Amino acid sequence: MDTIKQLQWRYATKKFNNNKKLSNAKLDVLKEAFNLTATSFGLQTIKLIVIEDKTLRKSLVELSYNQKQVEEASHLLVICIQKNIITEDVNNYYDNIKDIRKTSESILKPFREDLTQMMSKKSVNERQEWSKKQAYIALGNLMTVCAIEGIDSCPMEGFLPEKYDEILKLGDKELKSVLLLPVGYRADDDIFADFKKVRKPIEEAVIEL
Amino acid sequence: MDTIKQLQWRYATKKFNNNKKLSNAKLDVLKEAFNLTATSFGLQTIKLIVIEDKTLRKSLVELSYNQKQVEEASHLLVICIQKNIITEDVNNYYDNIKDIRKTSESILKPFREDLTQMMSKKSVNERQEWSKKQAYIALGNLMTVCAIEGIDSCPMEGFLPEKYDEILKLGDKELKSVLLLPVGYRADDDIFADFKKVRKPIEEAVIEL
Repeated sequence: MDTIKQLQWRYATKKFNNNKKLSNAKLDVLKEAFNLTATSFGLQTIKLIVIEDKTLRKSLVELSYNQKQVEEASHLLVICIQKNIITEDVNNYYDNIKDIRKTSESILKPFREDLTQMMSKKSVNERQEWSKKQAYIALGNLMTVCAIEGIDSCPMEGFLPEKYDEILKLGDKELKSVLLLPVGYRADDDIFADFKKVRKPIEEAVIEL
Repeated sequence: MDTIKQLQWRYATKKFNNNKKLSNAKLDVLKEAFNLTATSFGLQTIKLIVIEDKTLRKSLVELSYNQKQVEEASHLLVICIQKNIITEDVNNYYDNIKDIRKTSESILKPFREDLTQMMSKKSVNERQEWSKKQAYIALGNLMTVCAIEGIDSCPMEGFLPEKYDEILKLGDKELKSVLLLPVGYRADDDIFADFKKVRKPIEEAVIEL
């Protein structure tokens, strides 16, 4: 497996094959990969919504600047953040470490307290901005995993998050949508698939010290 | 190659093998992968600094909350953003598309104008925040590429960016440091390597609609 070759194969797919579905095995890889995304402190204040329902996705197209990939891809991934980060989130996280690693409370206590304090100093808006950065890490991870797995994808910031939140009832789950990633397989006639990749020369993008 | 297995193998390496260097071939993969990161509009307002120099890195440890990985890893990657995004950046980007894809100016003109206008409406601070999100995509991409390539890494937000900018003379290059990623190989005695991974149950992290 040539990693660079796969990253070069990847492109922001403009037209998906409407009839080619991801297997459950491939979907499981994406879900598991999302959950394995590294997040700040490991707090995981992000969630992944996986939408297969075509009728639902059809209604989302106009809320996505008419980008048809939302409907035509095999599945639509919506990367969300928690609306807030509360003490319970921090406590659940450290309780989870205790369960999984059998770490004693005396070791965890100072970390638990530090992180609780750090979060308490942030405004709700700052907590959301903090979580959004984690959403972008997840996007970077998922796009690369897709490329490695031979899955096509198209990252999207261009949609109406508040309308999405309404239709997907994300408020009930205390979530907000941040990023979209339709996933599936490119259509045979997506002319963008054959466009040469445009990147800066490597010596301009990378500086060695 | 089992992608999930590699992502499970990955962890935030606390102690690197001080003597084991990345080969030039591996370094080339990381540089190329960075340059292949998908960025918003493809504008690439991020840069990667690769530091091998041990003396320089030793001086950075105290600016990184004494995280020794900065010095002990094979190389230190510093993901930077441009301090600003100017009309010339947008024009260079579309000129690059014209060169590489032989697209005619009549097709590019409206895109060129839209993006110039969009950027002109943002404050310098908003442009930086916009670029920072791209830096997090690059981090997500690079961590996953490291995992696939069997390279250890440790993502870091905890350092003093302004001090880094001073020492690395990033101001001269109109850059600001945003994220660190020491890369190399784990030390045999890094006890964190054997810790069980802590993640939420998948049914909590992923919601299917």
